[in-house]
Formats: sequence, structure tokens, C-alpha cells
Amino acid sequence: MSDPVIAEVTRGSIVESRHEGSYAVVGAGGELLASAGDIDRPVYPRSAIKAFQAMAALERGAVDRFGFNLEEVALMCASHGGEPHHVAAALGMLAKCGLGPENYECGTHWPSFEGAAHDLARAGLDAGPVHNNCSGKHAGMLALALTLGADPKGYTRPEHPVQQAVAKVLGDLCDADMAAVPRAIDGCSVPTWALPLRNLALGFSRLASGEGLNETRRAAAHRIIEAVRAHPFMVAGTGRFCTALMQLVPRAFVKTGAEGVFCACVPHAGVGIALKCDDGAGRAAEVGVAAVLAGLDVWTDAERAALTGLAHMPLYNRNQFQVGEVRAIGVS
Amino acid sequence: MSDPVIAEVTRGSIVESRHEGSYAVVGAGGELLASAGDIDRPVYPRSAIKAFQAMAALERGAVDRFGFNLEEVALMCASHGGEPHHVAAALGMLAKCGLGPENYECGTHWPSFEGAAHDLARAGLDAGPVHNNCSGKHAGMLALALTLGADPKGYTRPEHPVQQAVAKVLGDLCDADMAAVPRAIDGCSVPTWALPLRNLALGFSRLASGEGLNETRRAAAHRIIEAVRAHPFMVAGTGRFCTALMQLVPRAFVKTGAEGVFCACVPHAGVGIALKCDDGAGRAAEVGVAAVLAGLDVWTDAERAALTGLAHMPLYNRNQFQVGEVRAIGVS
Repeated sequence: MSDPVIAEVTRGSIVESRHEGSYAVVGAGGELLASAGDIDRPVYPRSAIKAFQAMAALERGAVDRFGFNLEEVALMCASHGGEPHHVAAALGMLAKCGLGPENYECGTHWPSFEGAAHDLARAGLDAGPVHNNCSGKHAGMLALALTLGADPKGYTRPEHPVQQAVAKVLGDLCDADMAAVPRAIDGCSVPTWALPLRNLALGFSRLASGEGLNETRRAAAHRIIEAVRAHPFMVAGTGRFCTALMQLVPRAFVKTGAEGVFCACVPHAGVGIALKCDDGAGRAAEVGVAAVLAGLDVWTDAERAALTGLAHMPLYNRNQFQVGEVRAIGVS
Repeated sequence: MSDPVIAEVTRGSIVESRHEGSYAVVGAGGELLASAGDIDRPVYPRSAIKAFQAMAALERGAVDRFGFNLEEVALMCASHGGEPHHVAAALGMLAKCGLGPENYECGTHWPSFEGAAHDLARAGLDAGPVHNNCSGKHAGMLALALTLGADPKGYTRPEHPVQQAVAKVLGDLCDADMAAVPRAIDGCSVPTWALPLRNLALGFSRLASGEGLNETRRAAAHRIIEAVRAHPFMVAGTGRFCTALMQLVPRAFVKTGAEGVFCACVPHAGVGIALKCDDGAGRAAEVGVAAVLAGLDVWTDAERAALTGLAHMPLYNRNQFQVGEVRAIGVS
């Protein structure tokens, strides 16, 4: 009944903690290439499908209407660290829409990047919704609301046209009956729908290949991949796994979601991946998705070496001694 | 081979994540009262055994020599939030020893309590080793070094008399051959020895009951319990589980350790508990230890109700909507 162990954490000579999980890898024709564990159980993808939320805005013309550039499209797909460049870009997007931070419904938290949080406090400022890691996505949703002629107020509610447009993209790309899947509230108050990993991986293979998408969606998918590839910093930030992986291996797109989810795709091979660590640990999902990617037969030696490196992350203590490592196991 | 699920995290109508783990409950006579999962595998107790590290200082007379009061003894047992009162107490302990923060070997991190970190930055200050959550423990270790006539420099090394004294307490209380157990480096650079949960629970039952301890150690155990009971805030801090539980149920002593460990004892019943969440999640260890405590037949109805409440923790999003809960399951 348990899923297999996908990662373990060592300290000294023994394993201190271990993580179970499951993943699915789907090829350009929609075929299942590899999997482990239960891939038919519904999983909330959380922030891992921000690319699909961005696609809803792109396919309805919101990005063109408000003139969002590639950096801003990358930020729509981001869980960012709240660093100055992220914040400035989000504010710029709101300004292009004639809106401001008061229109955000994502709630406030301090910048995820500790240095940015301390700089903010040092300047005598407080955190606002623009520092929320989802502020780029929410700027895109506000732009979509205006484009649809809908009241921006309430854009986070499941019945709002913005969320209906997101559900349509998700359902179409992942072959899911959105009316039938479990729905809950995400950290930033938008709906999150639980889909099996098999379906999420299918959606990411379609994002990668464009296979089976109409022309508008295919163009949107292309723009998203172009954006995150050109601006990996905007997708996460300093010291963050998604940014580090995409800087090292620009031919991969990876996106983390809360509670141990990772979605990824390899556009040049049309492959989509979805992974969930059962206990919700991001560290396990990180090394796990690196190992799943490394196991694909689509890389140069240098790319594969970089991915294999990211599947083994050293663990340091407060004095920067290496005390162990987090490593993927049983994943290939 | 897997341990049982001890906690699950819900979102909306489904379980989003789940945590496996094991625990042991040992009575005043050293007998195993209850258990789940594998309790014979070595587990690094990390900060959960700070009371034993404090006991080494107490039994050698370091606490009396430097006149540490009960609040300071509680801080020796703490993983504190780095709040002003914690920091002032740690600095006071160092001053009583004629030492300063430059003698610390614990390394630096920003206060764990976010508000304290922001206040520090707002004041234009940087974090130092005194903000390290272990700074009270390390002040006690420095006092022990001086009491033993040893050079304080290097007090974190396994061969230093301070760590040898700690190992002796651990070995004696937990019936462990310390030369034979795995040893690694903790977050704050002191050694951490891996012991089976069965042995850790035995150690905590002895801390609770005094059973089988010599008079000096029995007095030290009594002083530790008196200290943490009088000053639960010093053991953790604002918004922290250990403090909250001990404020609600002063007849319990609970202490968290990194990577999902919890040790606990019930002095009036002589019961000791040790629990490990296999994936290292603190949230699961918290609700798990509350449920294990609640299952003991040693409480008033009000105490049991408080413990049962702590075994079900609501989960809020960035807008303070309740989106789910973290709850113990299969634990009693």
C-alpha cells in the first residue's frame, strides 16, 4: 500500500530520515514511459501547475493586451522569493493593468528569500501581498479578469470566470473531468484541483510537445517555455532549486508545488513528469525530480551529469560542516 | 517494513500528505507500555535530549557554581525562538561564566521566531550565535567546561570532557553502550548519538521517575522538571508547540528535536516517551506526541481534552482561511 522510498537523508553513517513518493513520466504520444508508486490517486498540484494558470491568460489574449514581456510571463509561472526584481516586475504588471496591490487577493507573507525579508525590515518596511510568492500569477489572473470583462474582485473564487478558464485548461491538457475531481483552497486562496500524477504528467507532456493542442494553445505553450528558459531567476530566485536546475539545464522546465509536488517537462523530447512526495517534503521532491529527469535518454553527458548532481544535495550545519546529504534513491 | 502512518494532512475533502513513524512508551519500572513501528532502529534524538545535556552540567555542579537560576536551567533544555528574553538570558549565563558570545561554537542563524528576526533587522542588527536556538544549551556546556577545569575551546568536539560527560549521562539513563552507537554532528556542531526509541523512552522515564538514579542525578532530574514547568516559554517561545503544550498541561514535559523527533515525560506517572516521524516532519511529530500523551491513563479530563486538541491542528492559508488540518491517526 505504501509508495516506494524515493529519497533518503543521511547524517554521519546512517539514514536519518526517508521519504516515500510516486511519479509518472509521459511521452509525446501520451504513453506512460515510466512510473513508481500509485499514480492514479488524486494529488493537489498546488503551485506546480502555474504554467497552466498562465496559459489561461495567454490563450485569452491577456498577456498581449497588457503587453507583458517574457520576464513577466516567467513571473506568472513562478513561486518567487520576493526579491526586489520579482517585486518590481509584479508591480509593473499591475501598473500595466491600471491596478495596484490592493487588488490582490493572495494574502501577505514575508519574502521567502530570507535576505530579502531582512532587507525589507531593515528599510523599516512591512511585507505586502506583492511579496507573496504567487504575486506574478495573481497579476496574470487580474489581467485575465479584465480581458474577460469580469469584475476583478473575487477573481480567486472557483466560480469566477478566471478560475473557470484555468479549470478548462487543466481539464483539456490533463484529460480530466474537472467537475468530478476534488477541489480545495490553495495557500494563496485560488482553487487547487486534485488530479492523478498520470494526468498531470500528460498535461506537461502536451505543454512540452504541443501535441493535440489547438494553434492558440500551442503558441501559448511555446511562449511559456521560451519565457522560463530565458528567465529562470524569475521562476524562483536566489538559492532556489527550480532556478538552479534550469540555469544548469536550460532544456528542462521544472516547477515545484507545496506539499512535495514537482512537475517538469522536456520540450525537445515532448516528455512530461509529475512527482509527489507522500509526506509533502520539498527536499525529497527536488532530488527525486532531478533523478527522474537524469534517467531520461534525452540529454547530453553534461546535462545528465548536472541533473545527477542535483539528485544528491549535501546537507550543512550552522557552521557549514557537511553533516550528511539528501539523495534520491530507487529513482531512474 | 514501513512504519505505520501516525499523522495525515488534509486539504478540502481529501488527505494531501501523510507521515509514517514509530514511538515507544516506557513506564516507571522500565517496562514497555505501548509502541508502534520499529523502536529498535537507531534514531538521532537531536535537540530532544537537551535535558540530558543539561543534566551533565547539573550533576557536575556547573549550575550551582555559576548560580544559574531556574529560568536559565529551562533555557539549557531549550530550542528557543531567539526572542529578546531568550537572548538576554543566554547573555546573562555567559556573563556569569566570565565568557561572551565569542566563546560559542554553535554557529549563527537568525531567530527562529520570524517577528524577532524582523525586529533585529529593523534595528539594523545582525544575528549572532546567541540567537542560535541552542544558545542556552551551549552556555551550559561552556559552564560545564569551566567546572571540569577544561579549556572551553573545542567543547563541541566528541573527545572534549564536556561531550564525554554528556555521553555518560545518555549511556547511563538510556542503558546504551555509547562507544558502539552511531555518532554524527548536530546542527549546532555538538555530537548527536543515535539510540533506539525504546532506549530514549527509558531515559525519559528515568528523568520522570528518578528510578535507578543516584542522589545527585535524581536531584538534577527534579531541578530540570521544576525549571521547564516553571518556565515553559524559555523552552521554545511564541507560537511554538513545546511551549503551548506545557502551558496547557504543566504536568507534561515535551521537547522537540530536528528531523521529526519528540521526547516527552510525565513526572507524576514516571512515564517516558520517544517518537520519530520517519520523514523528519516536525508537524507530524507534534500531533503524534500529543496523541500518545492523550492516550495515557494519567490525566484529568481537562488535561486529556487539551492534549487531544493539540493532536488536531488546523491548517490556515495566507488569508487565514482554514484549508485543512494536521491530525494524528492510529496513535493512542
